[in-house]
Amino acid sequence: MQHSYAIIGTGAVGGLYGARLQHAGHDVHFLVHSDYEHVRAHGLRVTSPWGHLTLPRVQAYARSRDMPACDVICVCLKTTQNHLLPALLAPLVRAGTVILLMQNGLGAEEEVAARFPQARVAGALCFLCCNKTGPGVIHHVDYGHMLLGMHGAGPDAALRRIAAEFTAAGIPNELKASLADARWRKLFWNIPFNGLSVVLQAETDAIMADASSRGLAQALLQEVLAGARACGCGIEDAFVRHIMDFTDKMKPYRTSMALDYAAGRALEIEYIYDRPLAAARQAGLAMLRVATLADELHFLDRRRRAAPAAPGA
Amino acid sequence: MQHSYAIIGTGAVGGLYGARLQHAGHDVHFLVHSDYEHVRAHGLRVTSPWGHLTLPRVQAYARSRDMPACDVICVCLKTTQNHLLPALLAPLVRAGTVILLMQNGLGAEEEVAARFPQARVAGALCFLCCNKTGPGVIHHVDYGHMLLGMHGAGPDAALRRIAAEFTAAGIPNELKASLADARWRKLFWNIPFNGLSVVLQAETDAIMADASSRGLAQALLQEVLAGARACGCGIEDAFVRHIMDFTDKMKPYRTSMALDYAAGRALEIEYIYDRPLAAARQAGLAMLRVATLADELHFLDRRRRAAPAAPGA
Repeated sequence: MQHSYAIIGTGAVGGLYGARLQHAGHDVHFLVHSDYEHVRAHGLRVTSPWGHLTLPRVQAYARSRDMPACDVICVCLKTTQNHLLPALLAPLVRAGTVILLMQNGLGAEEEVAARFPQARVAGALCFLCCNKTGPGVIHHVDYGHMLLGMHGAGPDAALRRIAAEFTAAGIPNELKASLADARWRKLFWNIPFNGLSVVLQAETDAIMADASSRGLAQALLQEVLAGARACGCGIEDAFVRHIMDFTDKMKPYRTSMALDYAAGRALEIEYIYDRPLAAARQAGLAMLRVATLADELHFLDRRRRAAPAAPGA
Repeated sequence: MQHSYAIIGTGAVGGLYGARLQHAGHDVHFLVHSDYEHVRAHGLRVTSPWGHLTLPRVQAYARSRDMPACDVICVCLKTTQNHLLPALLAPLVRAGTVILLMQNGLGAEEEVAARFPQARVAGALCFLCCNKTGPGVIHHVDYGHMLLGMHGAGPDAALRRIAAEFTAAGIPNELKASLADARWRKLFWNIPFNGLSVVLQAETDAIMADASSRGLAQALLQEVLAGARACGCGIEDAFVRHIMDFTDKMKPYRTSMALDYAAGRALEIEYIYDRPLAAARQAGLAMLRVATLADELHFLDRRRRAAPAAPGA
């Protein structure tokens, strides 16, 4: 018997992975916000280098309390929505439910685990270039592999089965012994490139092509490496080079934070910057370049949300 | 007999101070670039809290080789033009000429002194909110006092006389024993606020009003303090607070670097950021927040100048 899945938040991440799981034969239930009526009527369409998917019918819900209990709850919201999780998840969590936080940044698992002690809490780090380009339409640009780990423990049988089901659904993934280590590995990309893409209003290729912004990205990566190590993660020196190479090879990409900024949506500064900065500081390390970028982002975020979004932005 | 003055560059700085000196009865000669025809025909107009000035006739020149030798050469160009100084100044410098660099940043006096050993080289740090708003029109918004110092020495008789003439012309000024100290004091303002005004696209009041950008400005000031001290300048702790207070009291101000950026002109990153960063680094101090801002500025500067200026920008 395959796992059933609840997808909490049918944006780029939830739409892509949920569609793949449904396509692979899973019973998938999608919580949909802004395009609920459209998705209910027309389903989801995914363009992807993994193969395009058209799902004319999906099980869509506007409210989580209308959804059935599922074996696995994939939280695919931005972390800026995490204050909604207690209310959203309460109707869905049973003893043994796996809550899989498919989000960036540090600290969300602690909060969810404290709130739902009857659940198993896990995290997924998605290395993904993917955008929602219209109602029910997901454009998967590149990459998409995932690191999976249990909160505060090694992988259990349920997470191993999820990993196998993801693999069977064509979602490349890797089980990690340490979720904290995996989360820091993802921060390596998010901290330099999300932030610089907003502050410099640039896509990844422009950031990598200019000597100063490239040097800054590399210097930020070195700070994140020092921060991760201060927090006890054994990340190797070569990982800095790996992220630089990975980003060099990417198709020119406008990060999700740049898209959020352009649309006037809240930026994920708290989980991607503030919490890692605080964790490193508690471990005795000041990440001064990262802190500079975070301060700039907070200013821009507050100003942007105080003003109406520019037409077409 | 009063000093005669050559004003090299009749922008906001050269226009304001040159007009004050002419109004006080000095023989003043203005090198004018973009608005030469207008200034030659109509002179200069200055609106200022010190009193408005209308000078229907000024001695304007398009080329420095047409100018007479003067006792004092005030260099009022942006430092981005300093590669032009050898050719611009050569026809004007006599033995004993004072070259007064009314510019921001570090390192220009060394270059000019090496090139013109027969001259006396001095510097002026202008704490000034002033913009050129049209051909021959200078809008002096606020402040305007000046720190004066000799390059590599204490004030000599010529600089004392210049200071007295400036005072008589209504230009508040202070002679400093150490020009290096004065230059670093000016960097205290320029480094945080010029850079943040470009990166955040914000005026000073917005930077000071937001908790994150205000905290970043203060953290940058602390780094500049450490840098100045590493370079041997005895600047007191309270100067950080002084700059914060000074900026709090300013009228909302779009910095000259923000105006340069909007107009697609080169930014003064080399003298305001790169040279202080190099000086501090040589003294063993890494100013990491300042370096972050400088890298961002270099990226923005190169991109902006590669693209045509937006209409109206």
